[in-house]
Amino acid sequence: MQLNILKIGGNVLDKPEDLESFLNKFSSIDGPKILIHGGGKIATNIAKKLGVKTTMVEGRRITDEAMRDVVTMVYGGLVNKQIVAKLQSKNCNSIGLTGADAKVILASKRPVTTTDYGFVGDIETVNHVFIKTLLDQKITPVFAPLTFDMTGNMLNTNADTQAAAIAVAMANHFEVNLIYCFEKKGVLIDINNENSVIENLNQDLYKKLKTDGVINEGMIPKLDNAFNAIMSGVRQVIICDANNVIEVIKSKKGGTTITQN
Amino acid sequence: MQLNILKIGGNVLDKPEDLESFLNKFSSIDGPKILIHGGGKIATNIAKKLGVKTTMVEGRRITDEAMRDVVTMVYGGLVNKQIVAKLQSKNCNSIGLTGADAKVILASKRPVTTTDYGFVGDIETVNHVFIKTLLDQKITPVFAPLTFDMTGNMLNTNADTQAAAIAVAMANHFEVNLIYCFEKKGVLIDINNENSVIENLNQDLYKKLKTDGVINEGMIPKLDNAFNAIMSGVRQVIICDANNVIEVIKSKKGGTTITQN
Repeated sequence: MQLNILKIGGNVLDKPEDLESFLNKFSSIDGPKILIHGGGKIATNIAKKLGVKTTMVEGRRITDEAMRDVVTMVYGGLVNKQIVAKLQSKNCNSIGLTGADAKVILASKRPVTTTDYGFVGDIETVNHVFIKTLLDQKITPVFAPLTFDMTGNMLNTNADTQAAAIAVAMANHFEVNLIYCFEKKGVLIDINNENSVIENLNQDLYKKLKTDGVINEGMIPKLDNAFNAIMSGVRQVIICDANNVIEVIKSKKGGTTITQN
Repeated sequence: MQLNILKIGGNVLDKPEDLESFLNKFSSIDGPKILIHGGGKIATNIAKKLGVKTTMVEGRRITDEAMRDVVTMVYGGLVNKQIVAKLQSKNCNSIGLTGADAKVILASKRPVTTTDYGFVGDIETVNHVFIKTLLDQKITPVFAPLTFDMTGNMLNTNADTQAAAIAVAMANHFEVNLIYCFEKKGVLIDINNENSVIENLNQDLYKKLKTDGVINEGMIPKLDNAFNAIMSGVRQVIICDANNVIEVIKSKKGGTTITQN
């Protein structure tokens, strides 16, 4: 049986009308499905108002205790529950989850090396059995990018990585399609040309394009997650425009398909 | 089979050491259990920092859209997920829920009469079947005082009322003990005398004490909820000190027991 796992990021979350449009599309997808959302600018904005400073190192948020509380509130509360309430109104019975809920995603706090990322979680296990019990009840899990450790800490976690880890774990039960939705039509050969989408990207081509400096820096962590997923039992990984997600699922057209070879 | 449903309020939530102590006790309760938490001062404090004004009418919070977002963040995110993560560290496998999650508590937005309470929910249905599937998996639901309507709105809901509604619904499956934990040893005959606990309070005595002005005003909504629960199939309703909850459950000593007659 097929399972569609979709990840959306800040570009969709930050614009109410884009989120509404995406959730209409998401609700219309038949069969079991899972949504993972990122954070977006709202956490940064609320942190600022609360006097909590945002520090980024190489595009990643440093999560001290005050920032951990902000992301727990904003990702786990505001964004997650707003999405769940909206999905309910669209007849998509969903449940909002962080990793701590029902021990669904256990992580460990990232060890301090040259950088102390603070309360950031590296995923250890995904409780795919519990997730399957929800899907069997026709309930759609909606994940905030938060995990936990067994010492009582909530941990901030990269949503792309979390999506890949969930997809890999669910491959124990389903033929999983993992779809990363973002603001471009797919992975571009030329960042300035929206129509330069690479239709199929395999490991060899990815290595070559990285070496040649063609792949945009910001895309590398997402693509690393995508390749990890496809190498670990996920049937299909696609990177596409959030607006185009229905066509990608139904007619397998559009976006960049990640392939092993 | 017995089910213990405990409600904690701001007095426990606002002090980290009291919360820790309570959660240790809660974790040690054998058998199926449910926790409902209120909000506490933290929502008011965060609202203030975010420039969102708190307006209370007769002890109830007016929930405009900005305040609704604050309580969704704080109750549904920060407070709820912190409790869940802490319970996991104490080997109590819990799941944080709002009413919107898995459509577990459907409400309707309170109609505007002389007062417009804003995004406040009056509970309509509790999905006791879903809650039972969690309990059957030995998962402890932890409820934030939030519900939803089917038009996509999160709604602020009184935690005492929510606890009573959940208790009544779960009486379809269990012998339910509903325990309201607060900062006093029980319902007091003399508000200034901690040892003036009324051991058993029935409807007739309650009416008399209300008429005589003996019952503290702030206790009336809680007691109305307690009597609603005991009249609607809940086996036992007790109002007691959060510190004393284990003795109340194990040896049935302490607190005020609400009885029909």
